[in-house]
This record gives sequence, C-alpha cells and structure tokens, in this order.
Amino acid sequence: MLDTPTQAQAPGRPADDRVGIWLVGGRGSIGTTVAVGLHVIANELAAPTGCTTAGDAFVGVPLPRFADLVLGGHDISATPLVRRAGQLADSGMIPPRLVAAAQAGLEQADREIRPGYDPATHEGAQADAVHRLAADITGFRARHGLRTVVVVDVASTEAIPEDRPEFHDPDLLTQVLADPDGVLLPASVITALAAIESGSGYACFTPSAAMTLPSVRALADARGIVFAGQDGKTGETLLRTAIAPMFVARGMHVHSWAGANLLGGGDGATLADPEAVRSKLASKTRGLRSLVGEHVVAPLHIDNVPDLGDIKTAWDHIHAEGFLGSRITMQTIWSAYDSMLAAPLILDLARLLALAERAGVRGVVPELGFFFKDPWGSDVHDFSQQTTELHAWAHATAARVAATTTTSGQSEAFGR
Amino acid sequence: MLDTPTQAQAPGRPADDRVGIWLVGGRGSIGTTVAVGLHVIANELAAPTGCTTAGDAFVGVPLPRFADLVLGGHDISATPLVRRAGQLADSGMIPPRLVAAAQAGLEQADREIRPGYDPATHEGAQADAVHRLAADITGFRARHGLRTVVVVDVASTEAIPEDRPEFHDPDLLTQVLADPDGVLLPASVITALAAIESGSGYACFTPSAAMTLPSVRALADARGIVFAGQDGKTGETLLRTAIAPMFVARGMHVHSWAGANLLGGGDGATLADPEAVRSKLASKTRGLRSLVGEHVVAPLHIDNVPDLGDIKTAWDHIHAEGFLGSRITMQTIWSAYDSMLAAPLILDLARLLALAERAGVRGVVPELGFFFKDPWGSDVHDFSQQTTELHAWAHATAARVAATTTTSGQSEAFGR
Amino acid sequence: MLDTPTQAQAPGRPADDRVGIWLVGGRGSIGTTVAVGLHVIANELAAPTGCTTAGDAFVGVPLPRFADLVLGGHDISATPLVRRAGQLADSGMIPPRLVAAAQAGLEQADREIRPGYDPATHEGAQADAVHRLAADITGFRARHGLRTVVVVDVASTEAIPEDRPEFHDPDLLTQVLADPDGVLLPASVITALAAIESGSGYACFTPSAAMTLPSVRALADARGIVFAGQDGKTGETLLRTAIAPMFVARGMHVHSWAGANLLGGGDGATLADPEAVRSKLASKTRGLRSLVGEHVVAPLHIDNVPDLGDIKTAWDHIHAEGFLGSRITMQTIWSAYDSMLAAPLILDLARLLALAERAGVRGVVPELGFFFKDPWGSDVHDFSQQTTELHAWAHATAARVAATTTTSGQSEAFGR
Amino acid sequence: MLDTPTQAQAPGRPADDRVGIWLVGGRGSIGTTVAVGLHVIANELAAPTGCTTAGDAFVGVPLPRFADLVLGGHDISATPLVRRAGQLADSGMIPPRLVAAAQAGLEQADREIRPGYDPATHEGAQADAVHRLAADITGFRARHGLRTVVVVDVASTEAIPEDRPEFHDPDLLTQVLADPDGVLLPASVITALAAIESGSGYACFTPSAAMTLPSVRALADARGIVFAGQDGKTGETLLRTAIAPMFVARGMHVHSWAGANLLGGGDGATLADPEAVRSKLASKTRGLRSLVGEHVVAPLHIDNVPDLGDIKTAWDHIHAEGFLGSRITMQTIWSAYDSMLAAPLILDLARLLALAERAGVRGVVPELGFFFKDPWGSDVHDFSQQTTELHAWAHATAARVAATTTTSGQSEAFGR
Repeated sequence: MLDTPTQAQAPGRPADDRVGIWLVGGRGSIGTTVAVGLHVIANELAAPTGCTTAGDAFVGVPLPRFADLVLGGHDISATPLVRRAGQLADSGMIPPRLVAAAQAGLEQADREIRPGYDPATHEGAQADAVHRLAADITGFRARHGLRTVVVVDVASTEAIPEDRPEFHDPDLLTQVLADPDGVLLPASVITALAAIESGSGYACFTPSAAMTLPSVRALADARGIVFAGQDGKTGETLLRTAIAPMFVARGMHVHSWAGANLLGGGDGATLADPEAVRSKLASKTRGLRSLVGEHVVAPLHIDNVPDLGDIKTAWDHIHAEGFLGSRITMQTIWSAYDSMLAAPLILDLARLLALAERAGVRGVVPELGFFFKDPWGSDVHDFSQQTTELHAWAHATAARVAATTTTSGQSEAFGR
Repeated sequence: MLDTPTQAQAPGRPADDRVGIWLVGGRGSIGTTVAVGLHVIANELAAPTGCTTAGDAFVGVPLPRFADLVLGGHDISATPLVRRAGQLADSGMIPPRLVAAAQAGLEQADREIRPGYDPATHEGAQADAVHRLAADITGFRARHGLRTVVVVDVASTEAIPEDRPEFHDPDLLTQVLADPDGVLLPASVITALAAIESGSGYACFTPSAAMTLPSVRALADARGIVFAGQDGKTGETLLRTAIAPMFVARGMHVHSWAGANLLGGGDGATLADPEAVRSKLASKTRGLRSLVGEHVVAPLHIDNVPDLGDIKTAWDHIHAEGFLGSRITMQTIWSAYDSMLAAPLILDLARLLALAERAGVRGVVPELGFFFKDPWGSDVHDFSQQTTELHAWAHATAARVAATTTTSGQSEAFGR
Repeated sequence: MLDTPTQAQAPGRPADDRVGIWLVGGRGSIGTTVAVGLHVIANELAAPTGCTTAGDAFVGVPLPRFADLVLGGHDISATPLVRRAGQLADSGMIPPRLVAAAQAGLEQADREIRPGYDPATHEGAQADAVHRLAADITGFRARHGLRTVVVVDVASTEAIPEDRPEFHDPDLLTQVLADPDGVLLPASVITALAAIESGSGYACFTPSAAMTLPSVRALADARGIVFAGQDGKTGETLLRTAIAPMFVARGMHVHSWAGANLLGGGDGATLADPEAVRSKLASKTRGLRSLVGEHVVAPLHIDNVPDLGDIKTAWDHIHAEGFLGSRITMQTIWSAYDSMLAAPLILDLARLLALAERAGVRGVVPELGFFFKDPWGSDVHDFSQQTTELHAWAHATAARVAATTTTSGQSEAFGR
Repeated sequence: MLDTPTQAQAPGRPADDRVGIWLVGGRGSIGTTVAVGLHVIANELAAPTGCTTAGDAFVGVPLPRFADLVLGGHDISATPLVRRAGQLADSGMIPPRLVAAAQAGLEQADREIRPGYDPATHEGAQADAVHRLAADITGFRARHGLRTVVVVDVASTEAIPEDRPEFHDPDLLTQVLADPDGVLLPASVITALAAIESGSGYACFTPSAAMTLPSVRALADARGIVFAGQDGKTGETLLRTAIAPMFVARGMHVHSWAGANLLGGGDGATLADPEAVRSKLASKTRGLRSLVGEHVVAPLHIDNVPDLGDIKTAWDHIHAEGFLGSRITMQTIWSAYDSMLAAPLILDLARLLALAERAGVRGVVPELGFFFKDPWGSDVHDFSQQTTELHAWAHATAARVAATTTTSGQSEAFGR
C-alpha cells in the first residue's frame, strides 16, 4: 500500500480491497512512469489525465481506487526507481516536482521489485524459474493482504520465435519446462506461466509470444485466470484505428497508408533490431488491413533516433480515392512521450482486470481489445466500436459485481 | 431521366420509381461535378466511390438506383454545364475522358436548369419568386413523371442575417413575402420556401439561414416535407469529428485545436469575405466544442489562395494533455478537391431523403446529421456514432418501406 | 562583470575590454534567457550552441569574450529574474539545473535592471525620460568600467503609430520632447533616443518604430553611434529566406506562400492584439515578396494559443509552378522555444556591435541584416547571401581593428 | 531539328548552332517529359518554367536556344513516345493539351531513338556494343548537322557493382571489353564509353557506376570530352542542401535528419529493389553529412507506393539543438511529379555543356554540381554556394566564348 494515506481510504474499509499491479519490466521507462504517476494520483497531487477509466463513462463502475493499487514487479535491471525517475525528469519527460513528490512511493515500490528472469543467465529447469517468479507474486499478495494481483508484461519486445511442437501441446510444454536441458522458451512465456501459476490476472502489453502460444493459453484457461492482450495501442495505431473507419463510412477507397516512426530511448534501440521489430510491425499493420482491406499498400518503418529520447514522432501518409477517382491525401503527425501514453493504460488494465476478477470473469476479455494493437479474442479494431464495447462491458460487469455483492459497504469502497 | 438507359432500368419497372434531384446552384462546381458523376455512374462508366450509400452497410436498403436519379436545378449563372465541366477538366479536377463521356448527360441536365432567384435584381413581392421557383420544381416533377424530388441547396455561403421578427413568426413571414416593399429575405429562405411549397424533400448543404429560421421551419413542418441539414461535412470538420472522440475516450484533455484552411476556386473567393465566412467558422467550431469541451482554444482561418484552385488544404494542430501533464501534439494535413468530396454526398442525400419520403417519414431527419457540420435535430457530432445511427436508421426505414409496400415488384426496383 | 571569473579572464587583461549589454525589456522571457545563458556560457557550464558568433566562421575575429559581457537593462516589470527564470524552468523551457547554476548571475544582473519607461504613467516632458534612461546607461558603463555598451530593444511589439511631422524633422522632434504636453511618442523612440544620448551601440530586435523614424535616425547618425535592426529573424522568416532562393534558382514560379503561427507565452498575448500584430505581419512578408516577387499570395496569421506556452509552431504551405505548369507543394513545420531562438542572437549582436564600435564603424551596419526580418540599410533578404556578407564584414572589421591596434596585447584579449 | 520552325530560328543563322541531346533511357518518364517539354517550349506554347538557365541570372550567356536543341536517344523499350506521353497525360502529370500539341515533335524524336544496350541479351564482345552505340550518336550528329551532342544518362538506377581490377586500369578495361567472354560491365559504363568514343558531352543523371570508375574517367579525360555528374538533385536532397546551411550559420547543432520517401511509377518499382536503392541512399546522405557533420543520425527510406504514380512525397524530420540545449524541430513535406523536376534540368545540362564545349572547356565541370546529389569534381553541397558558383562559371565561360568568337553573328545566334 502506498505510504501516504488519503481521505479515500476510509478507516472502516476492509483491507482486501487492495489490488496489486505486478509489472514485468518494472524498472523500465513505463514501469517508472507508472510508479511516479500512481503515487501522485493516489495522493491527489495530480489528476488521472490519460486514464481511460477515470472518464465520465466509468462513473458508477466499482473499480479499485488508485489509492488501493499497490505496485511490485520483476526486472533484470537493478537501477533503483528513484534514479530512473531522476533520469526521466532530466530528459524533460516527467516534471521534476512530481518525481520529488513521489520519492517515498518510488522507494516503497522499489522494495517490491524482485530480480527478473533472464534467459541469458538461466541455469537448470525452466520450471524452477516459473516457480520462483510465481512465489514472488504470491508473497507480494500475502504480504500486502491484496484481494488480487494483476501481472502486466511491459518488458522489451522479443523476436518472434520459430514454431515448435511444445507451443501447441501443454504436456510437451510441461516436459520442456521440467527438462534442465530443455530448449529455451521465450522470456514472455516464463512470465505468463508465472502469472498463471500464481493465479493472477494477466495483461500482455508487448507484442511478444506469451499467451499467443496455444499451449500457454490452454494452461491459462485451465487455471481460470482472467487475461487480455496484446501490444499496447498507444500512438500511431491508435490514430489509424480511429481514422480508418471514417474513410470506409464515406465510401472512399484507401489505396495506401505509409508510416514512419522515429523514437529514441530504450525502445528505440530495441526496435532497431530488425528481428525484434518484425513482431511489432506485423502487429501494427494487422488492424489497418482489417479495417480498410487487404489490398492496402502499407510500408512501415521504425527508426532508432537516439537524440529524440522518449518522444516518439510518427508520420502517416494516406492516399484514398474519392468520387470519380479523385485523389484525397491525408497526413498525420503524432508526437508524444511513449511511456506517458502507456503508463495510464497499465493502471486502466489493472483496475479493469481486477473488476473482472471480482465479477467472476474467467479467461480472455475481448472487450479490453480497446487497449491493444492486436486484441485477443476479438477481431474488432475500429477504435470507436471498441470504445462502445468497453463501456458496455464495464457496466455489465459492474452489474455482475453488484449482483454478487451482499454487503453494500464493499461495493461502495470501489469507484473512482 | 438520363438519356442512356442501362441494364438497371428494366423495361417493366414503373416510371414513378424515378427521383429528381433539384440543385440550387446547379451550375456551380459542386453541381457540375454531380452532373458528370451521376451520368457516368448511372451508365456504369465509373464506380460510385465516395458515395456513402454505395457501401456494404446499405445492402438491402431500397434506395433509388443511380440510373433513376434525374437532375435539374436553379442557377443565376447561364454558363452551360458542358463549359463548366470543361474548365474543371482543364484544372485537373475531373478526368477529361469522364467529361467527354458525360456530354449528353450534361446537356440534358442543362436543359432542366432554370434561372435562379437573385435578390440583387428581384422586383415585386418575394412571394412571387417563391411561386415561380416552386412551379419550376413541380413542372420538372411532372415532366419526368418523378415519384419525388429532393431539393438540395448548394449555393454560395451567405452572410448571417441580423435577427428580425418575421424569422420567428410564420404569419409575419407571410406578410413580408406578400409585401412588394417587404424587407429582403436571405436567398436561402426563398429557396427553402420554394421547396416547401412544391412539397419536395429538402437538404441544406450550406451554412445559410434557410430552415434555421423558426418561421420557415414551422412552415416546413406544417407542409409535412422531409428535410435535413446543415452545411456539408466534407473535410477538416469530418476529420475532427472522427478524431476528437479518440482523445476523450482515452482521458486526454484537449487544450487547443487550431486550424488553417487554404482554398481557391469560387468557394475560396466567397469565403474571403469576412461576413460570409462567419457562419462557416461558427459551424465548423460548434461540433468540436461539443466533443472536447467548451474550454478548447480553437483559432480557425480560411484563406483564399486562388492559385490552389479547387484543391483545399487544411492543417490542424491539436495540443492535448496526457498522463502527468505530458504534452501530446497531433497534426493533420488534409488535401482534396472540395467539390469531389461534396458531390457524392448530394447523391447520398437525395437517395436517403427519397427513401425517407417513401417510408412516410416527415419533418427533420436527425440521423442524416452524418452528412453535416451542424446537424439539425441532433446534437451528436461524433462521426462514428453518427455512422452507427445512420446505418440503423436506413435499415429501420427500409423495414418501414417493406411494411407499407404491398407489391413486392416495387421494392425490388430499388437497391444499389 | 559576472561574479565568477573564468580562466578566460587573464589577470593582466585591461578592465576596459568589458562590454555591457543593456536590454530594454530585460525581465521578459528573452531577457531572462539571455541572463541565464550568459552566466552559464561565460562560466563554461554550457556551450554557446545557437550563437552565430561562436561558429568556425568567426575564428580569428576579436569579439569580446562571453565572460567579458556584463548585463543590465530597463523593465517596467519588477518581477525578479530569479523568479522569472524559475517560471521558465517550470514550463520546461530552461533546464532547472541551469537556472540553479545561474542564480548568482541572475541576482547580479537583476541589480542592474532599472525601472523602464512606461508611457501609461509618464508625466512631464518626455525629454526628462530620455535623460533619466540615458543616465541609467552611462552610470552602468561607469560603474563597471565598460569599454562600450550595446542597447538591445527586446520589449513587446508596438502598434504602428500614425505618421506625424516630428517623425521626419529632428528639430520638431526635439520640441515635442521638451514640451510637457507634447504628443506621446512610441516607447521604442524614447528607448532609441536614450541609447543615442548615452552614445551606446543600439540594436532593435522588435518591429517597433524606433529608428525607422527619419528624425530619430538623423539624431543617431549625428551622434555617430553604431546600430542595426530590425525585428529578430528567428523562426518562420528565417526558414523562408533560406528556402525561397532555392525556388528562384531553379526557375520555379512561387504562386503562394501561406503561413500559420501558433504561440502562447507573453508574445502570444501581445500578438493577439490586431493592431500590434500589423507591424509584425508586414515585417514578415516584406522579405518574402522581395525574394519571390510581389505577385505572391501570402496570407499569414499569428494566433495566441496560451496552452502552447513559449513553444512556437509555424506551418507554411508553398505552392510553386514547375515544368509545364506542374504543381509543386512544399510544407514546413517549425517548432521551437521562441526565446531560445532569440537569446543567442542578442549575445551575437552585442559582440558584433562592440567589435564594430572598436573598429570605428559608425551608423547603420547593413551586414547585420543577417539577424533581422527587416534589415536596415540593406535590401538583401536571401539568408545565404546574408551569411556570406556577415562573415566577410566580420573579417574586414577584424582587419580594421588589427590595423588600429598598436599594442598586440589588447587584441589578444579578444577572441572566441 | 524540330519540325515547327519558330521565329527564333532566323533563316540566316548557321545550321551548326544546333545541339543534340541524346538521352539514354529516352522513352522513360523523364525522356518523354523532356520530349514534350522541349517541343512546346521551343514553339513558345509554354514558358520554360523550372529551367534554371531560363532565369535572369543567365541573361547574356550565349546558350543554345531551346529551338536549336534536337532530341535523340537509346532505349531498350519500344513503346512509342506518343503512347508514353498519353499515359502520362492520363495519370494527370502532363496536361493533355500539351501532349496533343507536341504530337509532331514526339514522332520526330521517336524516329531518333535507337535500340539501347541490354546486358541481359547482349552477346559477343562488349566493345561491339560501345561501337554500335557511338555510331548511333555520330550518325545522329551528322544527319542533323549538329555542332555538338550532349549524352545524358537518365536510365534506371543500377545496383552498385562489386569492385574489380578493370575499374581502375584503362588497359584492363579495354581487354575486358574486347573479350567476348569478358565479365559483364554495368550498362552505365557501356553508355559512358559510347559518349566518350563519339566525342560527345556527357552528364550522368543517375547514381550509377558510369564515370565514377577511375578507368572510365581516365578514358574520358584522355578523349577530352566535357562532362558532369552525378544523380540529379531534384527533390528531398535539393531541400536539404538549401536548408542545412541555415542551421550551421546559426550555430545550431543538428542531431538527426530522418527521411521517408514515397513514390510509385517506374522509379518506385526500381527503388523497391534493396540492391538498386543502396547507391541512391548513399548518394542522398553524403551531402547532408558534409553539411551538418558526420555525427548526424540520418535514417532514410524509399518506399514503392504504386498508387501514388509519378508524384513523389518526401517527409523529413530534423532535430537540432539550440541555445542551452533547447529542442528545435523542423519538418518538411515535399510533393511533386519527379519527372517534372528532372526534365528541365536535362535541358539545362545540355545547354550548359554545349556552352562549355563551345568555350573549349574539357574534362569535368565541377560548377555543374548545382544539378547533382553527388557532384563530380567538387565537395560543395551547399545549394546557395552552388548557385553562386554556377552563375559565376556561366558568365566566365560566356566570356571565354566571346573571346574566341571572331564572327559576332555566331554568338548572337545563341541566347535565351
């Protein structure tokens, strides 16, 4: 729990209203931004701008309060959050006064970040790693008396692995995990398995393998956890899925939609690796094709431009054909701090998956596709349609919670 | 009826399936484009790209066929459509081969364009002008055996008139009309009254006074015509109402949304008049404020740049605040031939109002707000929501038509 | 002199190498940025990035060292520089660590900022105001043992005054100044007269009247001061004068060059006043016309968008005609902190005018047109040509200094 | 000679004032545009807009008249110019009326286009191909009684060949050429050798090997032809070399300059080949690095977007550091028909190389670097500096012509 109590935490409220957010990659740029932001919002030093779930559409939905969210995570980096936050302040991304105000919260969160799983140094059966990670999560839950924990994978983008039999068969997967000489699985799989083993909710914010592997997905379904994914829809793809339906509604024929992305920061370096970027590019184009048609010519580049730091700039050039073959061109230029776009969505996902869990929802939540480039369980990419579906789901789920809650005091403890 | 019959016009189909489009300003750039486009689409020399009603969402809706639309109109200009179309071909807007192919259609339409109402030269009671215009329309309907006529006002933008008592009281209005020395009413009012008197459907594609005056509106309701408006949503405002809801859904706070519009052509010159442009600017900003909040700073300029001809270029700069006060900027640049964006919507409006009329709909149709910057009868500006409402309305209206049609042959005569 | 000596200040160097910069509007955004920047550059805590005179082209030119520049000025605001600098740090413009490092320098400079001339509260003969301001400057020079002082007007843009006889006749001007009931002259004229009376160098960084009035100019020439102007060329106009010659060199015909400027901060508010902005707009377009021809259609807007703060964003849309009448469009989008663009040019102007003064140059220096939208004494607007002329002038002036300096020690005391 | 004589062709003017342009790739998009343009300009149906040499700076320089330029060339395509021109008119690039007006000129030029050299089908010694191509050129010159011929290579971009000994040793090169089984040389080399053998002037408008090979260059110097290159500077690079010096002159530090190019047409397809594009990309970045420093991060992409046709759109994003480390961003968007940018430069090069030849200039002409991304014989990339050098060279060369011309009649025959 955050150290500075707010008026929102009424003394009589049961301790088990608290919800944990467990960030895989908790010391990265997104993780650090979540930590600063959660502290200052919970303590009402900043408004929850950028949080979907703080909007009017969610009034009446019994989400956990920001002040009831507790942060922990895994990371292979040992750089303290306070130092990372200082760097992000120096770069101009986070206002220095907020970093200063969040100092105690950052130190608190830092104590709950455990060494992450690193395939490069791992020895022995991978199952041991899964057990170790899961134990970290369950220990965190117990220590803070949390009602539930939501694991969110915000680690770096992985290369797409070559297909293997154990990706499709849970039994084979279990064998590989148990074998000290077993083929190395992607780190995102180990992460997802730990979430499953610990019975946590799970959200995949990266385009990594994780629960896209049928065998991992089968284990998640068997364990009955609630989950959603994949690959946070934060910038260029967000725009595209808001704009593309306009062309379709007006009967225009989109011929091409070209994109150029420039970014520095850690993400820029990761995505400069052609292998790692492949999964990202595929994820970005899929929604576009589904909206305007498979014929669309959609060249897309991501360039690492270190001097731009955490600001991501994306240029899109759209060529559509209108009446009598006339040329319509639209260009968009988007510029924002990538981690500032991602961080509030992490808080949203934690709140919504905690709500789902409380309502007894199990398995994938397709309506959370709103948050993702590559929505699991849904082929809806139209952002407006996703918005409608998310709002409807939230209120339907709220109704389920209300129906199952006998003591009215408990549900009142939730809400914005 | 267009002179070149197509296979769509089955011999046995009753003549009264034909629908008239009566364009006020029929020889302008939009009118000419409609004339060329209607001919080549009806004769299947071009696909109806850019027509909303040609989309998959309208399959099963018994709209009049393009080949069943007949064109007429009023204009104060005497320049033949063939010459105007030639100019538009030379400027690069309409492909020369389409203008050549549409020659017969243009000549046919030209014969149905009557001298328009010109306040500058008008003498006598304005009621006489209304009767004359209405007689032109009913004569057109009779001559072609049309089931119905839809009047669409595509004349130049008017200055906003100063308020007057007769704008609010139908009886006063009737008195002013009958008085040879009566105060001159805006031309768009005379136009709207002629549509009402002739019992036609009516759409207002400009930001002019027209049926925004309560007294005119009362007469329209009393006469029971079907109508929709106002000010075609073709470019920058279309984008804005598609994009703005995205910021809201994601909890971002839009601080400012500045716009610069460059255009030449006749519209550029009209809008260079500060008085005339005032109604346009007000209309453009209203939807934006309703979507992102009244606080938004939204400077907006329209500049007449004659050398750009009919291509309109709009730059928008959006500044939103995201998580922890971080800066998000988005810019859009839109470039297209304005008349090419407007023309297909004229065809859509005619088809949809003809459908409404056939289904017995009377009064304003709020669901056609999809086509307008300033929707009559609706405060919905969110383009996606408008799309959903339009589709639902079209199918509900189709069902009303089906319910009232006893001979199945008649409804089959419709469709895309 | 700045309080923290650097190694550049060799003990044996004569005190009269020091040069004063007297900023009219010294507590504004530009003035504050100059104060922070001068301190940290002089103390080698930051490189002189953005300073023209720090470039390789000026090697060998005996300019005063940054550490030998001493800051003073006039302002009608009493807000201390330290507070203003804190605000600019909070807004994200100046890095907080530089503001912290410059604290002593800011306090020192603040002590040398005297109450400015305020026409709104002035009483008595305006000549008294001129004497008071001039005495402030000569006192500053004496107190610090400065070799020379350069007055730079960075006050807010004024409205263009209506023409009057005293603007053309120095004797009439003197009469008006002496008359306690004389018509109020623009503040920029009082400022310029004080610079003249004090025998200082003078640069006009605003588009105000100042020395554009023939009578003021005549007094400046009579007094033999060195001066340059007008209206700092920092952003959009800088780009235009770099790009326009390219179109001309390639035989392209520029039809139109439209511009939209968005800015907040104090300057945004000032320029929101249609009267004040008129001089700015005229100044911005003059160079463009001189480069691409009087025929160019060049609508230009400056909008006050307070939420954008000190970042200025400018969009330009250029339409040129190429081979066989083909359309060429170019768009530029420029985004930068306006004061950060202006401040280094203030330092450049002070160094260069001090050099000129030392070389015995008198009157206007046309080669400093490089720094201005509306160059005095020159009709060259082509930025590249201005660059060539500036470099040549600097080296020719350096040669004049060398020729007149008998003791070599003195010239060695100068240099980058 | 063009079939329609103009008043410029005075009857008494000696026939040998005529100059041939021999285009390698004469039936491509650029070649066709040159053919249409030359005809309509020579016949005064269009102004020479876009031609550098038609500018005021060239008044008094005795360049061959447009009406004295005669077109011929090589191409491996057999598609007649008239048909290609019709396609370019249909695509909207060339106005149909100009294509119609140029019909006779296109047919005339078409008769002078000979089968090009195609490495894919070549058999026997490559020297035979060189002889055949050279004979085509000398036959053309004789047939039309031309004073001189300028060969311009506008063929498609080649892949960069792997280095080989014969690239450096003229004797080895001659051996390879004579050997029926000799390693295949790049087509651009065969082209250049034919220009050398025929004693023509030569300009390389592509980034191909051609005279960059030391052995080929040695042969050109030995034969004493006049030549210039390489890779036409038409769009994005033109902008860059006009804009980059501005940042340097103002002491700003350019960190990154990223570029995205979209184009369709034949060039788009060629450049979609990663091998072919490598030479282009290298050529584009070289000038930038020389202007702003080797440190610049400059990712650059060229995407083939067939639906965009011949219009090329380029987006550049520039990040520079200004005063106190402040961020300056500039973006440029350039959109134009690529062939319309290139064609006038072909005419310019022919006129200028003909002038040079007449003045007795031999070898490379560094001052024509103005036209090229990768100037031969010069390391000047600054466009403004190139402009100054070109103008000075033209007038100096004109003076050489005047000095060597004894009959005044001859020099009068030249001029714009």
